[in-house]
Amino acid sequence: MSTHFLHDFLTPKSIAVYGANNTFGTTMGTMLLIRIINSNFKGKIFPIHLKLDTVLGYKAYKSIADVPEVPDLAMIVLPPKVVPQVFRECGEKGVKRIILISGGFRELIGDRKNTLTEEIIEIANNYGMRFTGPNCLGAYNSWIYPNGEGRFNTMMWREQLKRSKFSIVSQSGTLASQLWLDSEYPDFNVGKAISVGNEANIDLVDFLDYFKDDEETDVIGLYIEEIKRGKKFIQLAKEITSKKPIIVIYGGGSQAGNRAIKSHTGSIGGNMKIFDAMIKETGIIKTDYVEEFLDISSMLLSPNFPYPKGKRVGIITFAGGPGALIANNAERKGLIVPEFSETLQSKLKKMLPHTASWTNPIDITFDMNIFNLYITFPKMLMKSGEIDIIIIYGAMGFRSMATFEDQNNKISQHLELREDMRDRMDDMEQMVITPTIKNSQKYSVPVIYINPQSYADPWSKKIRELGGIVFQFWDRPVNCIEKICNYAEYRRKSN
Amino acid sequence: MSTHFLHDFLTPKSIAVYGANNTFGTTMGTMLLIRIINSNFKGKIFPIHLKLDTVLGYKAYKSIADVPEVPDLAMIVLPPKVVPQVFRECGEKGVKRIILISGGFRELIGDRKNTLTEEIIEIANNYGMRFTGPNCLGAYNSWIYPNGEGRFNTMMWREQLKRSKFSIVSQSGTLASQLWLDSEYPDFNVGKAISVGNEANIDLVDFLDYFKDDEETDVIGLYIEEIKRGKKFIQLAKEITSKKPIIVIYGGGSQAGNRAIKSHTGSIGGNMKIFDAMIKETGIIKTDYVEEFLDISSMLLSPNFPYPKGKRVGIITFAGGPGALIANNAERKGLIVPEFSETLQSKLKKMLPHTASWTNPIDITFDMNIFNLYITFPKMLMKSGEIDIIIIYGAMGFRSMATFEDQNNKISQHLELREDMRDRMDDMEQMVITPTIKNSQKYSVPVIYINPQSYADPWSKKIRELGGIVFQFWDRPVNCIEKICNYAEYRRKSN
Repeated sequence: MSTHFLHDFLTPKSIAVYGANNTFGTTMGTMLLIRIINSNFKGKIFPIHLKLDTVLGYKAYKSIADVPEVPDLAMIVLPPKVVPQVFRECGEKGVKRIILISGGFRELIGDRKNTLTEEIIEIANNYGMRFTGPNCLGAYNSWIYPNGEGRFNTMMWREQLKRSKFSIVSQSGTLASQLWLDSEYPDFNVGKAISVGNEANIDLVDFLDYFKDDEETDVIGLYIEEIKRGKKFIQLAKEITSKKPIIVIYGGGSQAGNRAIKSHTGSIGGNMKIFDAMIKETGIIKTDYVEEFLDISSMLLSPNFPYPKGKRVGIITFAGGPGALIANNAERKGLIVPEFSETLQSKLKKMLPHTASWTNPIDITFDMNIFNLYITFPKMLMKSGEIDIIIIYGAMGFRSMATFEDQNNKISQHLELREDMRDRMDDMEQMVITPTIKNSQKYSVPVIYINPQSYADPWSKKIRELGGIVFQFWDRPVNCIEKICNYAEYRRKSN
Repeated sequence: MSTHFLHDFLTPKSIAVYGANNTFGTTMGTMLLIRIINSNFKGKIFPIHLKLDTVLGYKAYKSIADVPEVPDLAMIVLPPKVVPQVFRECGEKGVKRIILISGGFRELIGDRKNTLTEEIIEIANNYGMRFTGPNCLGAYNSWIYPNGEGRFNTMMWREQLKRSKFSIVSQSGTLASQLWLDSEYPDFNVGKAISVGNEANIDLVDFLDYFKDDEETDVIGLYIEEIKRGKKFIQLAKEITSKKPIIVIYGGGSQAGNRAIKSHTGSIGGNMKIFDAMIKETGIIKTDYVEEFLDISSMLLSPNFPYPKGKRVGIITFAGGPGALIANNAERKGLIVPEFSETLQSKLKKMLPHTASWTNPIDITFDMNIFNLYITFPKMLMKSGEIDIIIIYGAMGFRSMATFEDQNNKISQHLELREDMRDRMDDMEQMVITPTIKNSQKYSVPVIYINPQSYADPWSKKIRELGGIVFQFWDRPVNCIEKICNYAEYRRKSN
């Protein structure tokens, strides 16, 4: 069990909540408390409300002084001007941890400078309290209970289907929560998420320090607008990236981006070149795109995505056009698509019809031998040592290929169906995927399946269930794999 | 009605089919005939088979000579060596159009040069026949019957939900058919699709000529590996792009891409710089990525995506992080995110809480006034003349925001629900989208909604039903809008 001071922030046994009531649609505090209750939080909940006797079924207290014990954590969703007094009352009670959701701590009040941030920092220091925010969305922890039944959740709208070892620390509450509203899309759910807001007391670097040794964190995601403690950040990042990947998406750099950031968190934003140089030194994977952030993270998180040993891509396709496009994009994005050795080509040639191609891409067009596509050719490429990554185009559902719509039974009545086909499907599916995933591990060569059918197609789901990585089109994995290759190289050199 | 010779290829009233039988899973010809039948083709079908009396319920003929009429079209899926003889028989019968699916017309046969292509070209010329292929997947035409009931389809696995005025001509059968397997994903379906294969007789340029004046074609998509008639292509493209957009995805250019192409269609591929220079001259929109191809096409095809008058983006967001990232990405991708004029800023400032931002992005965080987000601010930006495109982050379902999971009725029993909320939802939805779409047309400023919920989320669907353009994350529209802006400018100049 972690002894890091932030561990208790994410695993409270009791929580006081300021700012919730019983009228839906009126306050953000109510919404947040609903989320906590819905997440099957098993700790005690103490709503604090001046007038109400109960809030959402929980006994409410006029003041935190009246609460019969010292809560592990207080969450505050109140107008900023009352927050200093609430901080004092929490301090008097002995509360040590606060999540301060409210914003409005740095904007001008009329013409007057806003000193609320300084005030609450001082109060917190006086009482030995630590707090996240202001202007944050709180936290999400799917690991609060070892058995996985229940979460600590102040910010996800909907329950995450799974829990993962992906943890995100974000200077934007949105990036920490709204990337996961579609729990199927990137095929991974977040395990722990932290919205640090304006970082008046606890910052992103603190959480980096916590996730460094956190056993429930294998991959760390960051959304950064400004790094307040650059030296410490670099030192920590270097320590972490030799063991765990860190992926960052940076909101600063452009003129408009910096303008947006200034208004968002009051940071000054920064210079993209300086940021990039710093990031490069640390081994952190950087992306500018949210989809790439999700795609890279999902690959890093997959237990069946071994780090590639180089940048040489082998392409196996059942269609010429996608093969050419994958090859183009791969080269454009810094990967290598080597022509196979004569030895390997002659082996492949013997196994293929003369309409096929065997130079790389292997284009099996008109060859219906799916065992070649799914198992034999991938294994031959892995064994050859000539490639480091395999992309398979055309991992399409057998069922879809082997069935057809038959309105009013127009066709089936005239057709001899090979009756054994459907029965063998289930075996077949497992039969063609599992051996290749094992080989992928054995040879440390990641395999990416491309199925242009819907991401929710049963066959895509099946491959994912069996541990495979599937994309609907090839652009997305091809565009981001080089970054993973660079990280893999960094990691090898630093270990 | 078009008098172009290719029109009849796509609208046959009768078709002879070589290579289909009654045993599912044995021949590609059977699969293709199943597709034709399933697409509710209303013409006559004449299977040609040496042994069978019926094929899929249709009376079969030993030879095309026995067919009681001259079919409009013959489709051939037979081993290449018998094709010349079949061509001759079709010629004798008086058939004028052939779709030649089979491949294997240019590869070495043992050590012998393959002259089959030359043979069939000569036969076709002798009889005045035209043919697509060899090595193609045929065609798809959702416009064959004016009332939309029925298709002519040899290549789509599944029925397309809608028919659109997007027509694609492709040197890869896959690109012409498999991009549409998930009929929801890019939110548009193809209207006409042609796989031209090896272009022995009819080429991509012929179809470009056909689509030029085709009233059922508003946007033309091309997948190109090699252009055989460059001069004619450029001349035609220039004529077309001043009226209809053409978007191309190019499979050649890289070393590996050219190697793949050589094996795919026997073309030599090409030099990317030369291709790009040629494309630039024509006003064609070029992309290297299949998702971008779909995204640009879907925007061009939307009746509610007016051509932007410039590259200035206005961002309205209910969250700071996405606002900063959209601004960054927009600038990175050649767009402009101007700071609003003082006049506009002061108007906006008055309508926003002091925690908000009004410089561009407009960040309404903590403002719950959805009418501002959806209607008022977009209109103010349009009227100002200061921006050309609007991106709205946070177009999230009211229902999702206004409802919550309530396991075992733990919460609802304690909560005063504002009863009127749910009833007003339906009105609300229409109320906030429709006026902005009208304004978008009026001011010729496209509006793009970003909803990080699933693409299949009811609210995303609703916006799309009402004619809006929705993406799940901002990367994709932001990455490709500049290309549309460039085309819009080209179009203005050439008209």
